[in-house]
Order: sequence, then C-alpha cells, then structure tokens
Amino acid sequence: MTMLTAGILIIGDEVLSGRTQDTNSNFIAKNLTSSGIKLEEIKVIQDVKDHIINSVKIFSENYSYVFTTGGIGPTHDDITSESVAEAFNKKFEMNKEAFNILEKYYPEGEFNESRQRMAKMPSDVQLIYNPMTAAPGFILNNVYVLPGVPKIMEVMFINILKNIKKGKPKNVMTLNTNLYESKLAPYLNDIQKKYKDCSIGSYPYFNFLSKTGGVNISISSWTMDSLDDVVKEISEMIKLNGGNYSIV
Amino acid sequence: MTMLTAGILIIGDEVLSGRTQDTNSNFIAKNLTSSGIKLEEIKVIQDVKDHIINSVKIFSENYSYVFTTGGIGPTHDDITSESVAEAFNKKFEMNKEAFNILEKYYPEGEFNESRQRMAKMPSDVQLIYNPMTAAPGFILNNVYVLPGVPKIMEVMFINILKNIKKGKPKNVMTLNTNLYESKLAPYLNDIQKKYKDCSIGSYPYFNFLSKTGGVNISISSWTMDSLDDVVKEISEMIKLNGGNYSIV
Repeated sequence: MTMLTAGILIIGDEVLSGRTQDTNSNFIAKNLTSSGIKLEEIKVIQDVKDHIINSVKIFSENYSYVFTTGGIGPTHDDITSESVAEAFNKKFEMNKEAFNILEKYYPEGEFNESRQRMAKMPSDVQLIYNPMTAAPGFILNNVYVLPGVPKIMEVMFINILKNIKKGKPKNVMTLNTNLYESKLAPYLNDIQKKYKDCSIGSYPYFNFLSKTGGVNISISSWTMDSLDDVVKEISEMIKLNGGNYSIV
Repeated sequence: MTMLTAGILIIGDEVLSGRTQDTNSNFIAKNLTSSGIKLEEIKVIQDVKDHIINSVKIFSENYSYVFTTGGIGPTHDDITSESVAEAFNKKFEMNKEAFNILEKYYPEGEFNESRQRMAKMPSDVQLIYNPMTAAPGFILNNVYVLPGVPKIMEVMFINILKNIKKGKPKNVMTLNTNLYESKLAPYLNDIQKKYKDCSIGSYPYFNFLSKTGGVNISISSWTMDSLDDVVKEISEMIKLNGGNYSIV
C-alpha cells in the first residue's frame, strides 16, 4: 500500500510579517495524521503570483493532496484562485454554481463586483461549500483551495475530509517521564534501532520557575498494529534508571 | 539599499504530525519585521537528512539570513547539526568551546556521551550561547541554528538579533472598521493602485455567536516614511460609505 501524503501551502503575508499566528496548518495536520495521511511539508509563502504558481505545481507533483489556505477573498490581494488556474493552465472564469450561491446569499442589490470576484475560479473545478459565509473554495486535481479565516476553513476542511481517500491512521503513544532527555538518549537510540518501523521522538520541556522538567516520548508508526512492545521496553528502561513514567 | 531578507526552516516531525503547534516562526517573524528584515518564507520539514540538507542549501542561497529551529538535542532524532555540516561540506566534529561549556554545566560524572553529542557541530562555526540550558546553537555562513524549545529559542534569538545587520523597520498601521470586506474591496483596490510603495491588506473577522464582524486593514511599507496620506484616504472612504473606523 502506498502511503497517502500531503503538503500545506499557507498563502499569507500576514503570517510572514508576524501579524498573524497561523493555526490552520496545525488543525489540518492533526486531522490528516488521524486520517492516515502523512503531512510531509508546510510552506508559508508571500502573496506573490509567481511564488504561488510555482509552489502549487511542485506540491501537486510531490504529494497526494495539497491544501492551500488564504487569498480567496474579495480584495485585490486575494490572488490564490487565479494563480491556481495559471498553475494548471486553466481559464480563470466566473463559476456559475458559485455565482448562484453568492447571489442568493447576499441581500438584493448587495452582490457587488468585489463579491462577484469570489465566484471567479479556474475552469473545471469542484466546489467546496462554505456553510458559514457562503463563498466556496474549490478542488482542482489534487489541490484543495480553502479560505484563511480559521473558523471557516476548519468547517470546510472537515467536510472535505469526509469525502477523500484516507489511509491507516498513525498509531501513536506518548510516555511522560521525569528523567532528563540526555539520560534517556542512548537507551532510546538502541530501542529505535531495534524497532525500525516506528519512530521514537523525545520532546523535553522545562518549567523555568520551578526548575523542574521532563520529557514526552512519542512512539508512532504508520504500519505497526501494536506499539505495546516498544512502550513496554521504554517504560522498563525508565524504571531501571530510577525514573517515573506515565502514559499520556 | 538592498532589502535584507530571511527564511525560517522548522525541522520538526512533531509539527507535521500536529502534535505541536509551532510558535517559533511567529516569534521570529515579528522580531524580524520590526528589525527591518523581510521574512519571505517559512518551511516546516521532516527530520530527514536529505530534506534538511537541500532546504538549508536553497534557503542559504535565497535569503540574507536563515534561521533553523529544532533537532539539536541529544537524541538519535536530532540530526540538524550534522545535516548543516553536510550542506556546507564541513567536517562534523567536537566543538571545543561547546564541549567546555557543557562539561562545566553538568555535575561531575553526568556529562555522558549523549550530552557530549550536543557539542558536535560543523567546523568553523560561531556559537550562539544558551543562558538557560547551556547547550549552544551555532552560526555557519548565513545560517543560524537554534533549538526547538520555544522559551530557550526565544532568548537565544533575541541575543542574535542584537548583533546582526538590521534594516529600516517596516512601517505599519492598522485601521479597524465595521464595514464588510466586500464593500471596501473596490475602494481599497483603487487606493492600492495609487500608493504602489505600500501594501494594503484586509483581514476580515467574524464573531459567529453575535453575528457581528469587521475588517482590519493593514497598511505597511518598507520604504515610505509616512503612511498618513494612505490612512487618511482610507478613513475618509470608510466615513463616506457610512462606516466607523479606529486606528489600532
């Protein structure tokens, strides 16, 4: 079975300037992982047409699924849709279904030119409906074009997820211990060598006020049905070294 | 004057799996923007040696400064330092200064092999000191290698920032209005066309409970000394359209 993969493209000057903390990619990441789709890259790029076109092309070739967020609103700086059209040599034109949805949504006389702009899309797309503010996203080939406002993006993404091909969810267990990472390191290294089908990550944390800390050890695998043996081996190693552990 | 630019490389399976919400890039982004350095790209990649090597090479060529976070701890999955060495064809060896710092930091007999691993670095680097947990980062060419733990990364980054060449800070003003984005769009488009040296971004938000919302209009420029004319024009346009505004 080939692993399903994904890449996320965040189109956002506001993220690069630090004005906005991106949370969209974390939301998508979590949901992909639990859906058996391996997120391999996240890229935040400027609202610059050539950059968007190039990144969309490369991501579309490299990954099973590409998710873009941002740049599909009504203003001059919203250039994602036309860039995606260009990336796939499609016409950029009024999408009739999107036009009708938006026309119905706005009070009479308020469906102005800027709002109509949100119905302009590459030809041959499938719409992603927006139950909150009407303006749809779209799917072209393996590229899923979503808005940047988190609450709206999240609802639309969850709807997408229902309909796409998923894989075997990643098997993940996390152990917490009070031992230092550098104490654990050689043992974890040996255990990692023994179990090559899982990935053992260690994530230290510190409380600088109480001067205490610990490590979260994450054991994850896309292929192993059970991680019990690995968890058992790590927890015994922690005990042997005088530490405590809990499964979190 | 050439604009100073930057790219951020987040090395982190834990970000891609959704386990961790990256906050490092937002912290770095904000500080770069106020230091006159234009962040042009953020990339989150897997803990895979070839990916790190390739990304470091490309980023180092494309940007004035490259900041990497993550992957310099004591465990088997910490492969950033050796990858950066390989990217620049440097030896990967024990750094004497780093070794001495760490040896002094740990109680006698506890400076074990894993901990010593944190002193292994590319040859010819300059250390980035770590006032919290001793293990240093390093600078090689235009690449700044930092840890992933936010509190530690932040202190080290602020120290770097004191010593690097900065540019003219980005001039930014934000207007908040109760008008809808699609109402504003054609006017903002015209104003943007008139002032080509600044960038006008509009960021709508919604409160889905109270069904109210508005738009933050961000006016920013790397070159203009004053944004007053643009702000004046936008605020007058808002008033003419029956809206309220405030400068935030």
